[in-house]
Amino acid sequence: MENFEFYAPTRVLFGKGQEENTGKLIREFGGSRVLVHFGGSSAKKSGLLDRVEASLEREGLSYIEFGGVRANPELPMVREGIELCIREKIDFILAVGGGSVIDSAKDIANGAANPETDVWDFSLKKAVPERTLPKGVVLTLAAAGSEMSESCVITNPETNLKRGYNSRLNRVQFAIENPELTYTVSRFQTACGAVDIAMHTMERYFSPGEETYLTDALAEGVMKTIIAAGKEAVENPESYQARANMMWASSLAHNDLTGSGRRWILPVHQLEHELSGLHTDITHAAGLSALWCSWARYSYTYDLKRFVQFAVNIWGVAQDFEHPEKTALEGIRRQEAYYKELGMPTGLKELGIKEEELETLAEMCSFGKTRELPAIRKLACEDMLNIYRMAYEAG
Amino acid sequence: MENFEFYAPTRVLFGKGQEENTGKLIREFGGSRVLVHFGGSSAKKSGLLDRVEASLEREGLSYIEFGGVRANPELPMVREGIELCIREKIDFILAVGGGSVIDSAKDIANGAANPETDVWDFSLKKAVPERTLPKGVVLTLAAAGSEMSESCVITNPETNLKRGYNSRLNRVQFAIENPELTYTVSRFQTACGAVDIAMHTMERYFSPGEETYLTDALAEGVMKTIIAAGKEAVENPESYQARANMMWASSLAHNDLTGSGRRWILPVHQLEHELSGLHTDITHAAGLSALWCSWARYSYTYDLKRFVQFAVNIWGVAQDFEHPEKTALEGIRRQEAYYKELGMPTGLKELGIKEEELETLAEMCSFGKTRELPAIRKLACEDMLNIYRMAYEAG
Repeated sequence: MENFEFYAPTRVLFGKGQEENTGKLIREFGGSRVLVHFGGSSAKKSGLLDRVEASLEREGLSYIEFGGVRANPELPMVREGIELCIREKIDFILAVGGGSVIDSAKDIANGAANPETDVWDFSLKKAVPERTLPKGVVLTLAAAGSEMSESCVITNPETNLKRGYNSRLNRVQFAIENPELTYTVSRFQTACGAVDIAMHTMERYFSPGEETYLTDALAEGVMKTIIAAGKEAVENPESYQARANMMWASSLAHNDLTGSGRRWILPVHQLEHELSGLHTDITHAAGLSALWCSWARYSYTYDLKRFVQFAVNIWGVAQDFEHPEKTALEGIRRQEAYYKELGMPTGLKELGIKEEELETLAEMCSFGKTRELPAIRKLACEDMLNIYRMAYEAG
Repeated sequence: MENFEFYAPTRVLFGKGQEENTGKLIREFGGSRVLVHFGGSSAKKSGLLDRVEASLEREGLSYIEFGGVRANPELPMVREGIELCIREKIDFILAVGGGSVIDSAKDIANGAANPETDVWDFSLKKAVPERTLPKGVVLTLAAAGSEMSESCVITNPETNLKRGYNSRLNRVQFAIENPELTYTVSRFQTACGAVDIAMHTMERYFSPGEETYLTDALAEGVMKTIIAAGKEAVENPESYQARANMMWASSLAHNDLTGSGRRWILPVHQLEHELSGLHTDITHAAGLSALWCSWARYSYTYDLKRFVQFAVNIWGVAQDFEHPEKTALEGIRRQEAYYKELGMPTGLKELGIKEEELETLAEMCSFGKTRELPAIRKLACEDMLNIYRMAYEAG
């Protein structure tokens, strides 16, 4: 087990009706002038925004609305939000939505609190935020886990670069998680959520490390839960228990609990960011499921025992002690079958990627052949290209 | 799944050498005049206190020592600490030790920050702390989980009452967890730690609730880890991996993660508090192991499926589908065998309890027949007496 830091200070209020406490929590965390940040019109139409704003009014908080975040939040909108915060002397940002809205809120908070720095420099890791504004979340999508993570992913449409950066300042002060708010999430988006949540933990699970028994057990618990709850929520969108277990899994899958003591990195995420950076209409989770099985087949011999553990403990594969590689491959095959069952892609053609784009993707992901990803099988530009090609040939 | 709040904001620095960061963390959390609170002479003799204090000096922090906490920390020492904090204008309390030292530090912090209230009233739940002092921990014992919990247990030697109270203010700001610091913990204390850690999660696991699949999976992960790591640490005290998994389990077992969504209470803890309250030489964990199997046999038919799940998922008992009660009882039997294997008591006579004390214990635990514990099988004074008697007859 490696040395690690664990710090997930987000206060979570979980369950039915918890959005009524939004104003009270903002006040407890010292907010008085609030930016209410959201995505499209659904938060308005559903009446959620009204309920949340009524709770702000009950606490005497002033607020302005700033909506319009799309999937894969983009830099120009972040810049607009920063200007608005500075002009209106905003002291608290409330994100009402899923990962895109939360990530946008995080970046706005960092930009507004560090006006001397170009906010895109945080994404490029040329600068580190020194301060931030306090933030809260009313979660409407169980997927990204941004509500408890220290991660923030933004896309620059000028360069098609989608880049993430981590900072302790990216942890939000509170998250309101009412599973009922996700009943209306579409079948496809629910399946995407299941993929995304599981992947945050799968990536940690398959990171280099040893003797992390407790972390492994927690990770396996999160993965098995999300496999079952994700399928149930796709089939039965108003199952409170499925939505609830899925929502809580989304927070725990990405708050670092399931990677403690491992040298975790997220190689499949890195490979995926180039897909949805290049084609902003590609949903992050669809990119992840389209890549994972190829990444796994390319890498499994480099930590065979780990892939056997995954096959046995997650998928209940009967272990072939004489031919562990068969067990490992069967685990990957079952994961692939699960993706298909959810209706998620397992190859790049399904996403409309063209063969001639594969080299560009590898070039981008390796930062022009200047970085290698230190995964269990180290990934240089050539390896990235091999994986993109395998995923392309997969369908 | 019930509505719940999850808030475990303690920053954990885990691993070898992390105590070197103590001063830096205190400074980050705003401390300047530190009370260094500890137990007996071992922290001094081992050189740990010197290392920690050197790290405070490197940050230019002033400090005074306040040692002498014993197991089951007592009210007079807390009162002394409060006076000291007020007199010396202490603004940060550093606990170097295990659960007793941490609980004492929490109570001192609450007492010093609320001088208008008698600190014992917090334990009696006659008053609620409104503020507190910031606190940090250098952990030397994996057991109580106080480093991440909101709980604080103090004994009043005048009345033999041992009482716990929960408060969000009882969460410490940071915890330094270096597993190597526990290499010298004795065989008996290590076994006690394994019992104590597992019990925090077992009590939550057996609390009333339903459809908490994720919480169950996490709880089962913690329990299985501590069963294995506890045994390994007893047999091989310098196994870093066993000590590390045990230490991290101690924090997660009691930070509320493993009870989220259940209506959790700790009935066996309540029954035990009277034992070690009446006889302060009884180790808390020894009281827990002496009582648990009797509590379980008294209660298992009230949530049979849960005890079957425990038997199958924790102990790998082959399920008897026609006679689930046999499976449940076999799970309890294996838990009992594990306690014996660790050298822990499984009956009250082993602790020196006399038959004529049983009624007193039940009287005390029911607050003079005025409270019932809302466990899966509700426990009134009579039920408490039945359990004490079963545990007495067990040996």
